[in-house]
Amino acid sequence: MTAMIVVIQCKDQVGLVGAISGTLAKEGLNIVSLREYVDKTDNRFFMRVDVEQEADAAMLEQKLHQVLPHDTIITVNPLPEKKIVVLVTKEYHCLADILVRNHFKTLGASVQCVISNHSTLQNICSRFDIPFFAVSHEQADKGRFEEEMMDVIRQHSPDYIVLAKFMRILSPGFVAKFQKQIINIHHSFLPAFAGARPYRQAFERGVKLIGATAHFVTNELDEGPIIAQQIIPVTHSFTAADMVEAGKEIETAVLARALRLVFDDRVLVYKNKTVVFE
Amino acid sequence: MTAMIVVIQCKDQVGLVGAISGTLAKEGLNIVSLREYVDKTDNRFFMRVDVEQEADAAMLEQKLHQVLPHDTIITVNPLPEKKIVVLVTKEYHCLADILVRNHFKTLGASVQCVISNHSTLQNICSRFDIPFFAVSHEQADKGRFEEEMMDVIRQHSPDYIVLAKFMRILSPGFVAKFQKQIINIHHSFLPAFAGARPYRQAFERGVKLIGATAHFVTNELDEGPIIAQQIIPVTHSFTAADMVEAGKEIETAVLARALRLVFDDRVLVYKNKTVVFE
Amino acid sequence: MTAMIVVIQCKDQVGLVGAISGTLAKEGLNIVSLREYVDKTDNRFFMRVDVEQEADAAMLEQKLHQVLPHDTIITVNPLPEKKIVVLVTKEYHCLADILVRNHFKTLGASVQCVISNHSTLQNICSRFDIPFFAVSHEQADKGRFEEEMMDVIRQHSPDYIVLAKFMRILSPGFVAKFQKQIINIHHSFLPAFAGARPYRQAFERGVKLIGATAHFVTNELDEGPIIAQQIIPVTHSFTAADMVEAGKEIETAVLARALRLVFDDRVLVYKNKTVVFE
Amino acid sequence: MTAMIVVIQCKDQVGLVGAISGTLAKEGLNIVSLREYVDKTDNRFFMRVDVEQEADAAMLEQKLHQVLPHDTIITVNPLPEKKIVVLVTKEYHCLADILVRNHFKTLGASVQCVISNHSTLQNICSRFDIPFFAVSHEQADKGRFEEEMMDVIRQHSPDYIVLAKFMRILSPGFVAKFQKQIINIHHSFLPAFAGARPYRQAFERGVKLIGATAHFVTNELDEGPIIAQQIIPVTHSFTAADMVEAGKEIETAVLARALRLVFDDRVLVYKNKTVVFE
Repeated sequence: MTAMIVVIQCKDQVGLVGAISGTLAKEGLNIVSLREYVDKTDNRFFMRVDVEQEADAAMLEQKLHQVLPHDTIITVNPLPEKKIVVLVTKEYHCLADILVRNHFKTLGASVQCVISNHSTLQNICSRFDIPFFAVSHEQADKGRFEEEMMDVIRQHSPDYIVLAKFMRILSPGFVAKFQKQIINIHHSFLPAFAGARPYRQAFERGVKLIGATAHFVTNELDEGPIIAQQIIPVTHSFTAADMVEAGKEIETAVLARALRLVFDDRVLVYKNKTVVFE
Repeated sequence: MTAMIVVIQCKDQVGLVGAISGTLAKEGLNIVSLREYVDKTDNRFFMRVDVEQEADAAMLEQKLHQVLPHDTIITVNPLPEKKIVVLVTKEYHCLADILVRNHFKTLGASVQCVISNHSTLQNICSRFDIPFFAVSHEQADKGRFEEEMMDVIRQHSPDYIVLAKFMRILSPGFVAKFQKQIINIHHSFLPAFAGARPYRQAFERGVKLIGATAHFVTNELDEGPIIAQQIIPVTHSFTAADMVEAGKEIETAVLARALRLVFDDRVLVYKNKTVVFE
Repeated sequence: MTAMIVVIQCKDQVGLVGAISGTLAKEGLNIVSLREYVDKTDNRFFMRVDVEQEADAAMLEQKLHQVLPHDTIITVNPLPEKKIVVLVTKEYHCLADILVRNHFKTLGASVQCVISNHSTLQNICSRFDIPFFAVSHEQADKGRFEEEMMDVIRQHSPDYIVLAKFMRILSPGFVAKFQKQIINIHHSFLPAFAGARPYRQAFERGVKLIGATAHFVTNELDEGPIIAQQIIPVTHSFTAADMVEAGKEIETAVLARALRLVFDDRVLVYKNKTVVFE
Repeated sequence: MTAMIVVIQCKDQVGLVGAISGTLAKEGLNIVSLREYVDKTDNRFFMRVDVEQEADAAMLEQKLHQVLPHDTIITVNPLPEKKIVVLVTKEYHCLADILVRNHFKTLGASVQCVISNHSTLQNICSRFDIPFFAVSHEQADKGRFEEEMMDVIRQHSPDYIVLAKFMRILSPGFVAKFQKQIINIHHSFLPAFAGARPYRQAFERGVKLIGATAHFVTNELDEGPIIAQQIIPVTHSFTAADMVEAGKEIETAVLARALRLVFDDRVLVYKNKTVVFE
């Protein structure tokens, strides 16, 4: 039904919905579904429209710019399919889930390659014919390590970089190059248990639920805009190791959900928050 | 922030959002939040708009009718506060929750009176100064019983009738008089375990979750449009009586949630379904 | 079915279950349900047994002590019904839920009185014929304030003190007098957002779920043993005020659940954690 | 920590826990965790014990039989690892999840082979080096079709047969040969929407949640003992196709969870119900 998605973000003012929907109607474009939100604190307008017909994207963006504030951010169905690069360390669960969906064309994006600082997950990648690049962090300094990764990434020009349990902290320089493009899965319900070993922290605190958080990466560790979060109950009988195991299920599910939302143009980022039009 | 709510339902066609938002803009009305949905199966358009400023409701409805299909259903902030009558039998949990919220003015509606076919809950009503009418179903035939209830209801002209664990089945004639106005809480996740003694049925089937469903009442028993549903996990150790107890928590929560949605003009009914703009 | 509950906590060693169940069998007592857990980190044994028949509690405790390590903690169905005192400030939702359950005898405990540092909730208490004591914190220093509360509490000798949205921090001296007896509801999924204004913190962080935590009070603020936690999803469209409102539902539910677990002798405390036999 | 699991099911009588734990203690076996349940309706006793040390299984079973009723069902850590055969049709999601866990040795069982009435999923099996048998149901009558499958199954002597979205109904004769050994995932929260096309049924009913149920297969279609169930919320905006997609996530999760419980000896079957010691 939906042939095109229009996403708009700008300063709020009276008449925006009218201006946008009027422009669409003039082009003979029917609105299947429309989500709009105004952040009154920041006086900011967000909209996502499913359109029934296709149209020339550049033309439509131009027509919309004519009736909207000058610094409006408009994307018209940015890409038929996103391209992604996945960074991992040793844990397989999130990566395998991504590879399976990619293989069966249900990911909403196309995995270009996988980069890892260990060789553990090379085998699973080769089983799905996905290029795997081992970039060791051990012989190199952080600068060299990231340079090498960036070389690989550049060759694949991804729309997004997915950290699917990548256990190294990326430098501000690296992150700056991929603003709003790096998605991470953190194994706690942030802001609880930021940083290292969240399940150990959760175990010691005796919590009754553990969680996972998918977020965009910024230079504040585990502080970037949150896309999705979920929790599962745990009991006194869970050891820290049991929490790690149980947590894997929720990490996989939350990352899958966040990626689907992002790849489907449902996530708009502003300052340190996301607007998610589900 | 929101001063007025506009709810619109009509046959879908190109340009509806533009026509509506254009009309609002012309009146100097700012859209705080807008939810729109088109049911492609039925080619039906649904919209709910939060407006920042107040305006004359009748005038605005008229202006909207001028630019929309002739059989469009429009309500502009129908009532500052809904009036309700609550029907109960013997169980207290849903009623007490409603009475407490009503007392503290957080129900979104005003309880006019409570009607019951037993006197059990008279005491709790009187503690909250809510008129209680005992209408026995025992000495009267069904027709007389419902007549008596209807007399009481008519005196209070409610917007909605809430069946908060009312254990009698209402006749088609009664239901016909209050189309889309009667809200019931059924103690199962419909369509599982419709009819009598759902927890007994659930116990015997050995399910691992039980639920509750809030729905509008139609003349198909437990078949009306569903507003909200929720479940809780149960285990082998639950007796049917334990399920009844555990179920009360979820019945209370689901009914409270459904009422909040309805009273806040977030529920649009069409055929046997609801569109819920949360 | 269950006539008696036996709760046991001691150092772990081989043969404990055999010793306990042997003792019960010798007394002709049938085990309806048994939950046992050993914390291997601390080498600590926890058990809760539902017994089908009644027996003399003191006699049974003595017989059990004879076959168990000398510092074992044994309680045999401590009380047919617990007595509680509830401390509140201004918010009604948790208190009203407790009062309703108390009124209908489904709380599992008996509310002796309510103490508050404001008079806001006096009315609802009087509607349920529950003694209400206003103890102002304004004219008195903290010592005097707590002294006054303690006087009231002592007169009612409660098993537990429930902080049902009591917004003052209790002094170490006060807490020390009621070890493992004070239960608090904190309006966040701890350890996230400890301290003041958790919903404001949650709003600013842009989380996608908010929660509530019921815990025993110790002298580490919001650091006591957690009994129960739960969360609800929120979206970008929630203001901090919306979160406060939505949070009330979950606070009420979590505190109700925690109280049911505690009053039903299902919560064993050890160090900073709880063992919860649901 | 746990070296051995003991699972016991028998008629209830006084002294069972004592007899069992006494026997274990005499053998110097320490109980790490013990779960016991008595079904009072059926007067049936169920127990699962985690034991810290290993012992000779046959010897221990014999010693336990000496102190327990003569028709007691005892299993001592039945197998270090279960063997399974997976039956599928065309949908990949449950199978791929099983294959990934199998590949990384976290399934708790070992996949011997996959049988399908279509060739669609041959490719994914070969990527994981798992034997794939295509057994067409088209050229053969049902008897021949099942015979062929049974031949393959017999060669692999599995402990369990997993129907991971196998869309054919098995005959009573087939099911009778594998009592309590066939596990199915049904794509609804049973008993709602049993039979064909549950998501279509759910869509037409306008439910606000959809679910999945893992159960043992008996000769009553979709009526066997339920192991695990879970639901996810849906809204008016879900088409039947959207429900199918969303449902896949929950089907995968529920089947994975049920398999983990079964393979970990946590599921005891009696009549048409399960006792699940999580």
